[in-house]
Amino acid sequence: MAKRFIIGIDLGGTNLKIAILGPKYKIRDKKVISTKRFTRKESLISAICDSINRIIENNKLKKTAILGIGLGLPGPIDKRRGLVHFFPNIPGWKEVNLKSILEKRLRLPVFLDNDAKLMCLAEYKLGSALGFKNALCMTLGTGVGGSIIISGSLYRGANNAAGEIGHLPINEKGPRCNCGGNGCLETYIGNNRIISEAKKMFKRNVSLEELSALAKRENKQAQSIWLKVGMHLGIALAGIVNLLNLDAIIIGGGVANAGQILFDKVRETVKKQAMSVQARHIKIFKAKLGSDAGLIGAAILVKEGMRG
Amino acid sequence: MAKRFIIGIDLGGTNLKIAILGPKYKIRDKKVISTKRFTRKESLISAICDSINRIIENNKLKKTAILGIGLGLPGPIDKRRGLVHFFPNIPGWKEVNLKSILEKRLRLPVFLDNDAKLMCLAEYKLGSALGFKNALCMTLGTGVGGSIIISGSLYRGANNAAGEIGHLPINEKGPRCNCGGNGCLETYIGNNRIISEAKKMFKRNVSLEELSALAKRENKQAQSIWLKVGMHLGIALAGIVNLLNLDAIIIGGGVANAGQILFDKVRETVKKQAMSVQARHIKIFKAKLGSDAGLIGAAILVKEGMRG
Repeated sequence: MAKRFIIGIDLGGTNLKIAILGPKYKIRDKKVISTKRFTRKESLISAICDSINRIIENNKLKKTAILGIGLGLPGPIDKRRGLVHFFPNIPGWKEVNLKSILEKRLRLPVFLDNDAKLMCLAEYKLGSALGFKNALCMTLGTGVGGSIIISGSLYRGANNAAGEIGHLPINEKGPRCNCGGNGCLETYIGNNRIISEAKKMFKRNVSLEELSALAKRENKQAQSIWLKVGMHLGIALAGIVNLLNLDAIIIGGGVANAGQILFDKVRETVKKQAMSVQARHIKIFKAKLGSDAGLIGAAILVKEGMRG
Repeated sequence: MAKRFIIGIDLGGTNLKIAILGPKYKIRDKKVISTKRFTRKESLISAICDSINRIIENNKLKKTAILGIGLGLPGPIDKRRGLVHFFPNIPGWKEVNLKSILEKRLRLPVFLDNDAKLMCLAEYKLGSALGFKNALCMTLGTGVGGSIIISGSLYRGANNAAGEIGHLPINEKGPRCNCGGNGCLETYIGNNRIISEAKKMFKRNVSLEELSALAKRENKQAQSIWLKVGMHLGIALAGIVNLLNLDAIIIGGGVANAGQILFDKVRETVKKQAMSVQARHIKIFKAKLGSDAGLIGAAILVKEGMRG
């Protein structure tokens, strides 16, 4: 029987997504579980294994039909050795050889990469970045990740750690960041910051979805939060546009669902703050593959990894 | 007679350097003139032409012995068309076809590129960046320029405008920059800012050279200025190290002559502020070719341009 299916996993600071993808990276089944209750590394690894076994079973597939498992992970990864260096937003992980742990337990080929790189790979192969020679893809979530296409290829840098746009400082006197820096972009536009700003403003818990809905209904307070997010993101992107003279920037992740108000402010800020030659050229789009980009990228990783 | 000589020109906001380079890019003669008195574009172009003719004459060369003229210019350049888009620190230049103007007047092949790109090219071919796959070369002067080597090649970006590290914002509430942005690195560590800080501190004019000498003689005030420059530069570089996961950063230009105190502070700040995986890997060096890097890069540009 041909190995026609791939397991894709997208681990975030908030959710673990797991999917079975069929031919042409079509998602056949998908589950989302909260990662919050897995406070220990071991319990999170067990949860990953359990959900893989469960989704294979539920789809009445045999392991022999699975080509491999791809994981997108929220931190720097040694892709070649299958090593997690650490996760900025999940404590307890340090130099973990996750590839070998999972291959032993699951008896299937496992491939790891940084989640933002996989999102970028998917958007470049099948989504909004298609056809752009030099592009930045960003994911806005609990963490703010990114990945860069340079001259038509994923740029990995010296240790596969390139792309950490969330950790570009935009204010030297800004708040302390989990990464050890100060005033990193992530401290201004990460999920948690937006939600805590919303809580302060509305004196109750407001989800990102509600905050977007409120802004769309012209709620001035909700709009002011999104405008601030767009301004901060625009300032960081102006610097990157000056530095890298890119063709396109693709923005995905949950926060990107804020929609028009966010994208308009980002574009306006980049046009105003970046140098004219670079600003004239840049295009800024929403990611096309939405929240499935990471899962699709994970499947592409497996396909490319098995090929050679 | 073989065309054995190349004219190299390095135009800055303060000085115009002109040199004749012989085989192996050895500098045979060099002149430096101040650009301050050429306030109009036309008079600056005439000064460039006059100094080229004069240096050829003074060296008793015939024009037939000259392979071509290479110019490193302080702003974004359309290299293919030989067009100056504008100079952030020299007013009056906007979409000037300098290549065709100079070729008509001088009857020699002319090649233009951004000064930081030529410095980078020289350091990569003959200097401190030799052998590094992914590197940033910076020039610290009136402007703060940069250029990036990615996977062993000069990365130009979409419009040959990549590398503008001087225009990475490090403080969204920072001072207005010539480029239109706010709080750009250049507004903190450009020549003019350092000199004006020194003037404020010492209540008299203090040159960069004197400020370096004072710091070396343990003058606390002078040291405090260099430590601040190093801290600001380190913060910007930490962001770039996070974003690009480079192998090396090469720092040249007049300000780099401040020496140990500056480099120590830059390295310390990058180690402290950047993410661990990227920070562990990065090496930070002084440029090797010193103030001649731009002239040597201009000559390499001619050589490579004439080759096709």
